[in-house]
Amino acid sequence: MNVFVVGVGLIGGSFAIDIKAAFNEAKIYGVDRSEDNLEEALSLGLIDYISNLDELDKADVVIIAIPVDATVEILPTILDKIDDNCLVFDAGSTKKKLCSTVEHHDKRRNYLAVHPIAGTEFSGPQAAIANLYRGKTNIICEVEKTAFKLQEKGMEIFSRLGMRIRYMDPSSHDKHIAYVSHLSHISSFMLGKTVIEKEKNERDIFDMAGSGFASTVRLAKSSPAMWAPIFKHNKENIIETLEEYIANLAQFKELIENDDFLAVYREMEDTNHIKTILKGIA
Amino acid sequence: MNVFVVGVGLIGGSFAIDIKAAFNEAKIYGVDRSEDNLEEALSLGLIDYISNLDELDKADVVIIAIPVDATVEILPTILDKIDDNCLVFDAGSTKKKLCSTVEHHDKRRNYLAVHPIAGTEFSGPQAAIANLYRGKTNIICEVEKTAFKLQEKGMEIFSRLGMRIRYMDPSSHDKHIAYVSHLSHISSFMLGKTVIEKEKNERDIFDMAGSGFASTVRLAKSSPAMWAPIFKHNKENIIETLEEYIANLAQFKELIENDDFLAVYREMEDTNHIKTILKGIA
Repeated sequence: MNVFVVGVGLIGGSFAIDIKAAFNEAKIYGVDRSEDNLEEALSLGLIDYISNLDELDKADVVIIAIPVDATVEILPTILDKIDDNCLVFDAGSTKKKLCSTVEHHDKRRNYLAVHPIAGTEFSGPQAAIANLYRGKTNIICEVEKTAFKLQEKGMEIFSRLGMRIRYMDPSSHDKHIAYVSHLSHISSFMLGKTVIEKEKNERDIFDMAGSGFASTVRLAKSSPAMWAPIFKHNKENIIETLEEYIANLAQFKELIENDDFLAVYREMEDTNHIKTILKGIA
Repeated sequence: MNVFVVGVGLIGGSFAIDIKAAFNEAKIYGVDRSEDNLEEALSLGLIDYISNLDELDKADVVIIAIPVDATVEILPTILDKIDDNCLVFDAGSTKKKLCSTVEHHDKRRNYLAVHPIAGTEFSGPQAAIANLYRGKTNIICEVEKTAFKLQEKGMEIFSRLGMRIRYMDPSSHDKHIAYVSHLSHISSFMLGKTVIEKEKNERDIFDMAGSGFASTVRLAKSSPAMWAPIFKHNKENIIETLEEYIANLAQFKELIENDDFLAVYREMEDTNHIKTILKGIA
């Protein structure tokens, strides 16, 4: 099984590690804009060969793990170049724009729109880790548009990697993921910004920060190259989530201003219910 | 050494565990409004005896680990009841109001204003853990107002528990802690609220949430009984931080609305610098 990984960073590299472990016969071919990343991926053993898009005709599986704007650009070209029996899936955090881009492509049936809910705040080949996908949710959109045999091929991979499958339409995916993922990233980035701006001349202050701050601001370490295109693709949904988030913050501020600390208490008490919801999330 | 722990929850209970381990001769007396908490603390072995404020005359050390508004109320009474050689310290997340409350108390020299930057999102006696304070920052305010012998007694405890000491005035403490701690809690609570409100009828959606959401919303599990009084005490500073946070979020939203994704990228890139800052925080 020839697996082409387009983008040998955290996501693509972690797929490479687990697929090699799960499929004896798998050969991993790395494709990347960056020569340095390819060399690094080869020396780390993530990939077996450095390759390029012109060798795609020998691919059995192509995994696209690059920023979503780059995926939109490259996906039609990749579909043009592959064999009829090749499965192409991406791992992007938005799905609507991707699905509509290839809606009328001759090889639409070769593409599976995938979003594995897995990752860390790190990036690049050295960030790739084994078992990143084990026990994680994998959202698949418009599964019915993919050839049955190729759906099966995808499921075999996801199943051996230990993922839970959820099916969804692209619009619902993008709408809900804005709440449970994209908004978290913005809240974290802006928290980091607010504190850095205030404390830029007072380095000692960060001695005062504990694990609570570290946890809340962790996502502010994430890659801008990955996230700016996600916010672009999911603009409308993200604006809506941000408006609601800002309104909730403003209302909480008003309760504090009005010394209504009973209401402040109740707001927090109501939200404590997140404990139950979070059970089961790693 | 008779150590009275007023409030046998996460913070007080964890002090009890470590002090018993570090001082062979320590006897721990638990004082709490809740009989259930006292019984639980006793059966968990956090405390040696259930006690009450009327026995404070035999205390060598009193640790107050209850919500900050309750501390303001009880601290003068505790100081009235203790012996001249007894050290009283609290562990509250605000310091200005406490210091001003006892400013003119006859026994001001017996009090040390302490804020250990340690905790978890859990609460109650069963949340108490060993080594919670090891390697953590301990902020001490107005140290010069505490009797020299009692400063020494406090330092001996904090040193055996493995804490790093930082000295600060109460106003600076409250101002900076609003940024690096209190704001994180509000951002997390309001993130939880925004997502719960939106998704209340769609439970499956939380299957889409990954470790990023879990990390950012972790503090929303925190105790309202502890946090509402903190927001009350630190009202002015918290309103200021919230205004800056909301302004940053609104500006980020505007960049997205205006399709200025280069600026969106740069905002995130600038904030990535938090990586360096966070090094060393657990």
